[in-house]
Amino acid sequence: MVSRRLQRIYTKLEQAGLDSLIVSFPANISYLADYRIRDSYLIVSKKANIFITDFRYIEEAKRNIKIALIRKMNGSVFKLIADACLDLSFRRIGFEERHLPFAEYKKLNEEFNKKADLIPTFGLVEELREIKSPQELGKIKEAVAINIKAFKFIHGLIGCGIREIEIAAELERFIRYNGASSSAFDIIVASGPNSSFPHHITSSRKVKNNEPVLIDCGVDYLGYKSDLTRVFFSGRITSTIRSVYDIVLKSQDRAIKEIKAAVNIDKIDRVARQYIAQREYGGFFGHNLGHGIGLEVHEAPHISAKEKSKLKAGMVFTVEPAVYLPGRFGIRIEDMVLVREEGVELLSGNLDK
Amino acid sequence: MVSRRLQRIYTKLEQAGLDSLIVSFPANISYLADYRIRDSYLIVSKKANIFITDFRYIEEAKRNIKIALIRKMNGSVFKLIADACLDLSFRRIGFEERHLPFAEYKKLNEEFNKKADLIPTFGLVEELREIKSPQELGKIKEAVAINIKAFKFIHGLIGCGIREIEIAAELERFIRYNGASSSAFDIIVASGPNSSFPHHITSSRKVKNNEPVLIDCGVDYLGYKSDLTRVFFSGRITSTIRSVYDIVLKSQDRAIKEIKAAVNIDKIDRVARQYIAQREYGGFFGHNLGHGIGLEVHEAPHISAKEKSKLKAGMVFTVEPAVYLPGRFGIRIEDMVLVREEGVELLSGNLDK
Repeated sequence: MVSRRLQRIYTKLEQAGLDSLIVSFPANISYLADYRIRDSYLIVSKKANIFITDFRYIEEAKRNIKIALIRKMNGSVFKLIADACLDLSFRRIGFEERHLPFAEYKKLNEEFNKKADLIPTFGLVEELREIKSPQELGKIKEAVAINIKAFKFIHGLIGCGIREIEIAAELERFIRYNGASSSAFDIIVASGPNSSFPHHITSSRKVKNNEPVLIDCGVDYLGYKSDLTRVFFSGRITSTIRSVYDIVLKSQDRAIKEIKAAVNIDKIDRVARQYIAQREYGGFFGHNLGHGIGLEVHEAPHISAKEKSKLKAGMVFTVEPAVYLPGRFGIRIEDMVLVREEGVELLSGNLDK
Repeated sequence: MVSRRLQRIYTKLEQAGLDSLIVSFPANISYLADYRIRDSYLIVSKKANIFITDFRYIEEAKRNIKIALIRKMNGSVFKLIADACLDLSFRRIGFEERHLPFAEYKKLNEEFNKKADLIPTFGLVEELREIKSPQELGKIKEAVAINIKAFKFIHGLIGCGIREIEIAAELERFIRYNGASSSAFDIIVASGPNSSFPHHITSSRKVKNNEPVLIDCGVDYLGYKSDLTRVFFSGRITSTIRSVYDIVLKSQDRAIKEIKAAVNIDKIDRVARQYIAQREYGGFFGHNLGHGIGLEVHEAPHISAKEKSKLKAGMVFTVEPAVYLPGRFGIRIEDMVLVREEGVELLSGNLDK
């Protein structure tokens, strides 16, 4: 039986006039094969799907990948790909232009030796991945649940004297004891003025009294990712911080209320951004409102003021407005949402803010 | 003052008849700029070096990168790169073919609009990175020191009932408390039969009595990596395991004794492999003997039976012979060495095996 994912990619190939697609990006391979694996290539076509990997993963692939013939790399993988495609009489073969390095393109082209055309494609599999299946949503929700547990656990440890890197260390340990395979990215712990850098690298700085501690943490659960940010406080909070926090929170709330299927994506970003701008902090929110999340931490759709497409039911993305006051402090509040036909489901609704 | 690294890359560009090189691979940028940074591009040339990044890293770049003019991305980074190159009258411009995705190559080519040629290059910066400076060696040695501490710490925790993922969790926590920014890769904890997979993914399996626990762990210290493997035992060891362990250990010892400048690299691999083959386990050591390590966990040189070049003083690499008996167990012993003119320095000599 052909999976829905494969049926959809076959349709896309037909629309693009392609005989087949060489998939080289691990997240896209994992998606189509419905099994998380790396260091491999997948050729998809209506005629046959061929999965290629080396001796390290070949036994695992044979046991777990049901959608494709399994071939072992032996010598040049590019010759193997070209021979397989030519054996099946493919003439127009797509490849993923965002992911294939120039050198691999060159080698493939040499192996095809003008007997077939290599056609650059953009985002064919990524577009499918925008809409999450119930099975995928289950894994994302479990990642979020572990992430929320980790935030509740870490809350009790934050106080004067603990180092940023120690907070990250405790989170890294906790999420593995609670069912995740790892963090989804380098955990950001940004204390005091460090919180004013949107992508601070967790340092050995000690948390002081009466300052914010921004924590941006994600979890990997069976390949699916979560990504949440909270700001904790050690001691008293100044009225400026309190006021900025309130603005960011309300900005997020307004954006989330607008989310449902068929709404323009740029509108969501604009609603949050305008609220912050009207409160005189417009110059201090420099990044997009959010990003799709699933097999990758950052994937389509991009929730930005430049995005012209519409929300669709089944999309999952972050909503993370922020205000960064250089050298002073930063506030970012990041939650994850699922788009529904008639509204929105806040996936991280169990986490206080 | 121009650094030695830059002087060397200028010489290489001259030899290749190139006006400049567009560096897009983060480890190569970090090396040339002598500062660890991501999401950026670096144009190097005798005329001028230009470092390009976005709003997130621009302030950090201005403070820390001394070798280049700093430009902020604003709109298309490819237009910015092309304009900068054309302003400086470059006509033959190298790019890193292994690292530049086809789509970025295409966009650059469009922006250059036939006013300059884009020339694929291979490994120009990677070759420089093979030989470590004293400053780089200092960082690698610190990474190794933290790694060894972590192995000594974890030894006491290994026993019946602890899960693989919990062992990884404790290591992840420990190395951050001891000065590292993170692990260098997903820590492999492979217990019992799982150890027979060279690249086992750490699972929730519980360690049982009387079985081997293979741990492959690396540390990131200021961007420089370590990578060490040890096999621990919970309880009694069978005579087969003891005998295989002894063979792997002696194989490693023989290979390490051959290491010094000007020795053929393939010989090192062959010495280890032949020793294992003579003891009837030849078919059970399927990967290369080792790999260079520095800013990347795997970098040049590759210590393989196919490598035709010679060792040079200042190279740092792993030596990791192994025997994997499918479904039963695997033994891998991995250390790190520094090549000297007259011999070898075992960087991980303080760790028992």
